[in-house]
Amino acid sequence: MTFVFTPPAAAAVPVQGGAATALFPVHRIYCVGRNYALHAIEMGHSGREAPFFFMKPADAVLPVAEGTVGQMHYPSLSKSLHHELELVVAIGKGGRDIPAAQALEHVWGYAVGLDMTRRDLQGEAKKLGRPWCIGKGFDESAPIGPIKRAEECRLDADTKISLLVNGQPRQASSLGKLIWSVPEIIEHLSKAWELAPGDLIFSGTPEGVAAVEVGDTLSARVDGVGTLELKIVAR
Amino acid sequence: MTFVFTPPAAAAVPVQGGAATALFPVHRIYCVGRNYALHAIEMGHSGREAPFFFMKPADAVLPVAEGTVGQMHYPSLSKSLHHELELVVAIGKGGRDIPAAQALEHVWGYAVGLDMTRRDLQGEAKKLGRPWCIGKGFDESAPIGPIKRAEECRLDADTKISLLVNGQPRQASSLGKLIWSVPEIIEHLSKAWELAPGDLIFSGTPEGVAAVEVGDTLSARVDGVGTLELKIVAR
Repeated sequence: MTFVFTPPAAAAVPVQGGAATALFPVHRIYCVGRNYALHAIEMGHSGREAPFFFMKPADAVLPVAEGTVGQMHYPSLSKSLHHELELVVAIGKGGRDIPAAQALEHVWGYAVGLDMTRRDLQGEAKKLGRPWCIGKGFDESAPIGPIKRAEECRLDADTKISLLVNGQPRQASSLGKLIWSVPEIIEHLSKAWELAPGDLIFSGTPEGVAAVEVGDTLSARVDGVGTLELKIVAR
Repeated sequence: MTFVFTPPAAAAVPVQGGAATALFPVHRIYCVGRNYALHAIEMGHSGREAPFFFMKPADAVLPVAEGTVGQMHYPSLSKSLHHELELVVAIGKGGRDIPAAQALEHVWGYAVGLDMTRRDLQGEAKKLGRPWCIGKGFDESAPIGPIKRAEECRLDADTKISLLVNGQPRQASSLGKLIWSVPEIIEHLSKAWELAPGDLIFSGTPEGVAAVEVGDTLSARVDGVGTLELKIVAR
């Protein structure tokens, strides 16, 4: 028996202001679908529906340190790579069937993230009733800025969330426009899966999603949390 | 800065005949949809379509040692937990755009697996064009027996694959009935994702999928690879 595998290195996201060893090891990545009304409408849906979820592999995370510009490779198979700006919730305490009223006790911190999407492949999958994984769960599909401790963020309904591409505004909204709030998301999600420390939850994107090209620079921001800068490069 | 997370333990599957330290650390879990014609038909589809894929989180794996009976908890939210018997391919060498002719060089070994499915939730997701994750990617949804080194398995078109529930036959087919062969699966999959050592590929299920209940015992077998025994227990 010659067995030489070593375990894959755990993906991790730096913690804002922490030492070099302050890393948030990623367990799973959950994402909420259609959680801003105007984005639901631009995708051809309407109304308040029950929240639904999809996942990305943990090591699809692409951590970008504050003050640097991350590099994301344009993915294979697609001709329509879309940005989706999101507030990311980092879970510090796990659990099942967590009531919304206790949900914030399970939150360790927040970050700015981009739910990058192979829109053409996702669209085909939706039409055929097939899994979204090829459109959502690809390599490097989850760029994320440093995670900031929850008590250091000042988030409320007026908190602005915004994305510039090459300096031009593309997405702009506020957290008050979330259809399902962070506590409600955690309540619903923890009915279907047992949450664990290290889980990241991408909370949904506002309207304005669109394609990016090789060479484009994205600047994603959640006020009070931070800024994530990303450049799209060729494979 | 008080940061006390430890990285999540990597999920691992024992290697058949290996010492206690012979473990296969799981990187990602990919699954092939509708890869036996009679299963495609029983699910309301027909014809040879391009292969498509979905994923489960790496730690959804539920490793079951040879000669023991694993325990799987009946999952939350569902009233229709289905078994899907599958040959699992364990990747030892990664790569992108791997041609079918070279694909078997990337295979480390094989195992028997069960792609357990919350069928009611998957069905609703398909109908609505939503992600399959809630139906496919839940906790403990990937029971798997020990991985056997590829050169020790004798797999060909006549290799039998079978599942008994409480001693009664439920699924029975042969590997020759796979619509897309293992090399073809690897060729298609590695166009969409970069494969890495530790990836598991569930290759699809033959016809005969059905519900199991708490107390049922499943015995899944691929001739030349091994047997996986599993009991469904209450949460």
